[in-house]
Amino acid sequence: MTRNRQVRLAARPVGLPDASTWNYVDADVPEPADGQVTVKVAYVSLDPAMRGWLNDVRSYVPPVQIDAVMRAHAVGHVSASNSPDFAVGDAVSGNFGATEYAVADAKDVVRVDESIAPLPTWLGALGFPGFTAYFGLLDVGKLKDGDTVVVSGAAGAVGSLVGQIAKQHGCTVIGIAGGAEKCAWLTDELGFDVAIDYKSESVAKALRQHAPKGIDVYFDNVGGEILDAALARLRLGARVVLCGAISGYNATEPTPGPQNYLSLLINRASMAGFIVFDFAGRYGEAAAKLGEWVADGKLVAREQVATGGIDKFGDTLLMLFEGKNTGKLVLQVS
Amino acid sequence: MTRNRQVRLAARPVGLPDASTWNYVDADVPEPADGQVTVKVAYVSLDPAMRGWLNDVRSYVPPVQIDAVMRAHAVGHVSASNSPDFAVGDAVSGNFGATEYAVADAKDVVRVDESIAPLPTWLGALGFPGFTAYFGLLDVGKLKDGDTVVVSGAAGAVGSLVGQIAKQHGCTVIGIAGGAEKCAWLTDELGFDVAIDYKSESVAKALRQHAPKGIDVYFDNVGGEILDAALARLRLGARVVLCGAISGYNATEPTPGPQNYLSLLINRASMAGFIVFDFAGRYGEAAAKLGEWVADGKLVAREQVATGGIDKFGDTLLMLFEGKNTGKLVLQVS
Repeated sequence: MTRNRQVRLAARPVGLPDASTWNYVDADVPEPADGQVTVKVAYVSLDPAMRGWLNDVRSYVPPVQIDAVMRAHAVGHVSASNSPDFAVGDAVSGNFGATEYAVADAKDVVRVDESIAPLPTWLGALGFPGFTAYFGLLDVGKLKDGDTVVVSGAAGAVGSLVGQIAKQHGCTVIGIAGGAEKCAWLTDELGFDVAIDYKSESVAKALRQHAPKGIDVYFDNVGGEILDAALARLRLGARVVLCGAISGYNATEPTPGPQNYLSLLINRASMAGFIVFDFAGRYGEAAAKLGEWVADGKLVAREQVATGGIDKFGDTLLMLFEGKNTGKLVLQVS
Repeated sequence: MTRNRQVRLAARPVGLPDASTWNYVDADVPEPADGQVTVKVAYVSLDPAMRGWLNDVRSYVPPVQIDAVMRAHAVGHVSASNSPDFAVGDAVSGNFGATEYAVADAKDVVRVDESIAPLPTWLGALGFPGFTAYFGLLDVGKLKDGDTVVVSGAAGAVGSLVGQIAKQHGCTVIGIAGGAEKCAWLTDELGFDVAIDYKSESVAKALRQHAPKGIDVYFDNVGGEILDAALARLRLGARVVLCGAISGYNATEPTPGPQNYLSLLINRASMAGFIVFDFAGRYGEAAAKLGEWVADGKLVAREQVATGGIDKFGDTLLMLFEGKNTGKLVLQVS
């Protein structure tokens, strides 16, 4: 028998997830029913949004149920097919979960092309983080050429792409990240104009210095004090894109809201949230554009690959909340 | 000599303005220079926004300077003219200030028609509060027929018009106001579907009850806890219009931001601020529509006229922050 180890939700965490959050369970490898495929998962995506899926609250997706396999995007290869659309060995992505093998309806499985980019990139620049950056910046943020763009969580999966896409549009790009190493990566490798290290300098002061005319688009992945600092520097007609708020995801007490929200009023600015799923009908457009930029070397796609297999899922997830990843964090499963 | 008593800013207030905030000064009646008129002010407008103009901070208009006549919209009659566009006796409105007589360039003076509505209405439904409600709801709020609309400060100058304009578009309208009397006025006289008395009931609970499917447009005049309660009830694609935040205008310590702002993300909603001046090119459109609704009896224009003359300016302004006005608050000057 082939082992099929799975990560199941044992208990809803209060604060940071820990060992008691997860059960690691050996299940049978599922057989595909008619119209289904079985996928041998190669890499699982780790996303800050996962923390929200663990809470028993109404949100944009239902919470993961206790004892269910943890929801996760993943890439791998078809190991058994009961669908004319896929053959054994095909490289695919989908919402397969944190598991070594998954069964999925063929209609929910997306073919990926390893000749364009290796599998992990299909969980990053050519996957949901790429789509999120693309639609969040261009559609929700209504990016205009030459804008001054500020992005937080700038060394993360989405943030690093947001800044690079803005550079493709002739924008001045300021990234906010934690630590000298990440900041150097943003300016030296990704072409950001400025990187602000929130761990060693005042973000408010640095924004005053580097965005003297104010911010046109602020793409927020973190919330908290950094959101407030950005709000204080909005330009007339600015757009604030709410993509995430990782600084508060593990808070055990209510976190303060953005005190400077009235800057939206004074500056005739707007703050808008979005969920990438709403753009499903246009993923093809984003994938084509992102793929072109990656192929032309205009967009650096970087993944940080954690090893140790599915048993390391819980530990790897924590890296996101400890700021330990640069680029897209994935876990190698097989 | 005719007296020209003026309200001048004596000192910037900390917290609520008080007697030390103002100097009441007798000046000469100004003579109009070429292209100017002198206006004898009949009514001065009192607006929550005035509180912000007293702070020495960068905002959408410069702060009122110490010893300057307090900025205020007003209506009155031309008492002397040095412009071919206006004759003595013409009824006019403009940014004349808190003064008994003002001189103004003819190009900054707007003719009003007392046969359509009495002077105070030109400071309310047919003036800036009307324009603010009109553009804020229809343009910034992107009102759609049948929306569920919630407005705070609903018995105030702008809020009372917002709700009535929404009713003209077949919306379900919920007003939030302080006190049974104001609430009765909203439902019995203005046609609001529901009025929530924030002084005697939980706004959060009442919104759950009366907007079970959620809020499409929330028009905010107050900020604070009521904004948070509304954010918690947003529907997919909701629009939050930031018009004001009177609950915090006199705070002496930083006021908390909206804790529930991530509801914007989950619900793909947006929160946008605006300043009515940005719609100056379209005041004519709003005036025509508002005038038509008032003439047809579809829109109730109510003003609360404080008496006692210009010497009562300071006391009258405080009524706004004590929730003592219903409809548009004006001070009769002559």
